[in-house]
Amino acid sequence: MMSDIARSSLQLTYDGAALALQAAIAKAREINVPENIAVVDAGGNLLAFARLDGARFLAQFSAISKAQTAASLHMATGELPPQFGVDLAFATGSRSINLPGGLPIVVDGQVIGAIAASSGADPDDIAIAGAGRDAVLAALKP
Amino acid sequence: MMSDIARSSLQLTYDGAALALQAAIAKAREINVPENIAVVDAGGNLLAFARLDGARFLAQFSAISKAQTAASLHMATGELPPQFGVDLAFATGSRSINLPGGLPIVVDGQVIGAIAASSGADPDDIAIAGAGRDAVLAALKP
Amino acid sequence: MMSDIARSSLQLTYDGAALALQAAIAKAREINVPENIAVVDAGGNLLAFARLDGARFLAQFSAISKAQTAASLHMATGELPPQFGVDLAFATGSRSINLPGGLPIVVDGQVIGAIAASSGADPDDIAIAGAGRDAVLAALKP
Amino acid sequence: MMSDIARSSLQLTYDGAALALQAAIAKAREINVPENIAVVDAGGNLLAFARLDGARFLAQFSAISKAQTAASLHMATGELPPQFGVDLAFATGSRSINLPGGLPIVVDGQVIGAIAASSGADPDDIAIAGAGRDAVLAALKP
Repeated sequence: MMSDIARSSLQLTYDGAALALQAAIAKAREINVPENIAVVDAGGNLLAFARLDGARFLAQFSAISKAQTAASLHMATGELPPQFGVDLAFATGSRSINLPGGLPIVVDGQVIGAIAASSGADPDDIAIAGAGRDAVLAALKP
Repeated sequence: MMSDIARSSLQLTYDGAALALQAAIAKAREINVPENIAVVDAGGNLLAFARLDGARFLAQFSAISKAQTAASLHMATGELPPQFGVDLAFATGSRSINLPGGLPIVVDGQVIGAIAASSGADPDDIAIAGAGRDAVLAALKP
Repeated sequence: MMSDIARSSLQLTYDGAALALQAAIAKAREINVPENIAVVDAGGNLLAFARLDGARFLAQFSAISKAQTAASLHMATGELPPQFGVDLAFATGSRSINLPGGLPIVVDGQVIGAIAASSGADPDDIAIAGAGRDAVLAALKP
Repeated sequence: MMSDIARSSLQLTYDGAALALQAAIAKAREINVPENIAVVDAGGNLLAFARLDGARFLAQFSAISKAQTAASLHMATGELPPQFGVDLAFATGSRSINLPGGLPIVVDGQVIGAIAASSGADPDDIAIAGAGRDAVLAALKP
């Protein structure tokens, strides 16, 4: 049976990633927090990225890492016990990181991608990533 | 004298990078070539990125490397003699790469950033990056 | 409008970086602390470096990392909560580090570069980096 | 006998490195070639560095690699057969590189350090590194 060998899965498209990115940028500008914002697919590959003027340049790396971690963990980033987060960072060659601001985009129980913001305070990063995720979820509603 | 210690220089903004990215995406769709497209600032830090549906996912890395190389070299990428390109890649820890498709964005003789496309045939990558660069240059014309 | 696409920004020159380095070296010798001293531009690229006789050689790396971190964070290094500093180091591929001794060079609210010292006790590193930064700020005063 | 267990060796000091750097900078400015210039000690650790305005920023890495390679090889860089250069780059984790512009500083048959320039054409890189090396050799003459 085909379903044993291959299965259909929902994938975030570039247009979906761009929609998330634009909504996150709009939120960042609304609350006046310059951010690095990254959107990845369910496999952790980068789909869309923006670094707004004034955002910390090293956060280009953490934005991508947070999005990859959220896609892999199937949950918001930054919620692991600290020591487990450190151990996981070592165990994954610094790919899995434990900072808030990364959110999976989950549809019908399936992770289709993830979005993260990095450069602001934690609540700002989370709110901005959330605005991006919510724009995708709203667009997918029947 | 102040001009010895610091100098004023033109910098590509995120809006400028987004303009370049959108023009490059439009060109990629017009000629039906899925691409990874990266825009960096003059110091090589990522400003904007898109991976279109169907683009090779490992080319996310080459798109960024090409853009950084173009910003550093102050010239189009992929024009070095092959052996020199290889030696330069080693010498820069794989940062400087010798593949076509990266173009500096030059205003009044000054590099303000760079754009690159990666995933297509060389002429397509170059045309798509060129569309992005030209959109910035056109917008900056008085 | 041009200001949306590109903006003018102040950049530390090599001469500015050399001025900072010389002032930091003078301070290090005055208080007899051998140091690694690094000056980077606003995008984190190395402009000037010195390792004084007797300075710890592995601190060549931490001096550069501290300067890059200060340029990115727009603030002095080493002031983050310890666990956040560790998580940020992982999240940025060890680029963002949480050790004192890195200071941004800020002119009119804009980061134009950063300087860091590494090898001494924290207060010495900070004083030596501060001497370098202050030399630039003094030279830029009208 | 002490000479079996430890030996006296001549070491380039920071002042020696700074002398080499200044002479190389003077040469680069004389022939109007913006460069990245690196000086390392006999063990390959960075002593002094300068990136002149307009020099390619990725060449910050190749300048350091060339200087380390010259110190290790005890000869000018870029003179190996191409394939051997590639194999050596792989074998050393990209530390040993095969591009001209790195010169050992040799006193009484002993390598006391090395200097390299990177960003210009090969003859310029070599001339500029040579000016730095020669300044040290001249200063050491009785």
